[in-house]
Amino acid sequence: MKASVFTATSVDGFIARENGSVDWLPTGDGPGREDYGYQDFLDSVDALVMGRNSYDMVRSFGAWPYGNKPVMILTSQPLSIPTSIPTTVSAMSGSPHAVVQALSNKGYQHLYIDGGKTVQGFIRAGLIQTLIITIIPILIGSGIPLFGALPHDVPLRHLETTPFENGFVQSKYALLDINP
Amino acid sequence: MKASVFTATSVDGFIARENGSVDWLPTGDGPGREDYGYQDFLDSVDALVMGRNSYDMVRSFGAWPYGNKPVMILTSQPLSIPTSIPTTVSAMSGSPHAVVQALSNKGYQHLYIDGGKTVQGFIRAGLIQTLIITIIPILIGSGIPLFGALPHDVPLRHLETTPFENGFVQSKYALLDINP
Repeated sequence: MKASVFTATSVDGFIARENGSVDWLPTGDGPGREDYGYQDFLDSVDALVMGRNSYDMVRSFGAWPYGNKPVMILTSQPLSIPTSIPTTVSAMSGSPHAVVQALSNKGYQHLYIDGGKTVQGFIRAGLIQTLIITIIPILIGSGIPLFGALPHDVPLRHLETTPFENGFVQSKYALLDINP
Repeated sequence: MKASVFTATSVDGFIARENGSVDWLPTGDGPGREDYGYQDFLDSVDALVMGRNSYDMVRSFGAWPYGNKPVMILTSQPLSIPTSIPTTVSAMSGSPHAVVQALSNKGYQHLYIDGGKTVQGFIRAGLIQTLIITIIPILIGSGIPLFGALPHDVPLRHLETTPFENGFVQSKYALLDINP
């Protein structure tokens, strides 16, 4: 089982404003637009795991963007998923280890972990293998940070960095095993 | 007058641990070692402006590293600079605008702004033109952040990004004028 993070952040490390807004994220448009490897990444995962806040934010954007890809919403609260959402979307609770174990038992091999608290929890648990961060050239000053407190340093291995024409800089890192 | 920042951060955006330690920063050694453009940058500035905490940290490293380059220590407290420190080092107080004005009046043309609070204050005041950030492949979880709260978004222009063999990734950004 492998778990990856694919996200954009401001240069000061936020994935969204305090209220979840990503209005500072430039949006491309039209056919053939650069997607920074997003679709290829999405195609490489079996399932998404995101927190309740991310789910609410994704829903606020309009049409459900993940098709029939299995999506697990991590929440400790009851969650009623409307019928307009594909039946491949389900609620789940438990620690990152329990979630990975349960999804591994179901045969999933590559998870896309998304959302601030969720990503932080999985990194703290040593359960993320790959970080793909696209840095957007802006400082927003405050918001939801990608990273959080850690019980110890987490060394990374830089895999590659790609600067894009519009100033986005995408770096890929492997997380080294901190729970050997 | 131009002011620049040249600093290393962890992937999670810290310039030092809470106690100022940079023990997580790999140190090279020996002649001909890669300095990530540091000496060229240092040669390009007329003076350094750093906060009191950075000054204390630099002094703790041993020999004073800035030769006879003028260094202004920003502090609102009395500061006695020992005779072992070059006489080109002096204490100064005042807002970022006042500091820039005073140093501009003295004929300085390019300032190196260093230290967490100092950098944040100068960015907030719209007084930084160039950010050169070398991202070290590690998450340290907590520490002194490079960036802080802002009164409004600060758009950046990406100038260039250089990945190094050892996994350091250096990005240069221009800060766009937010006080036109």
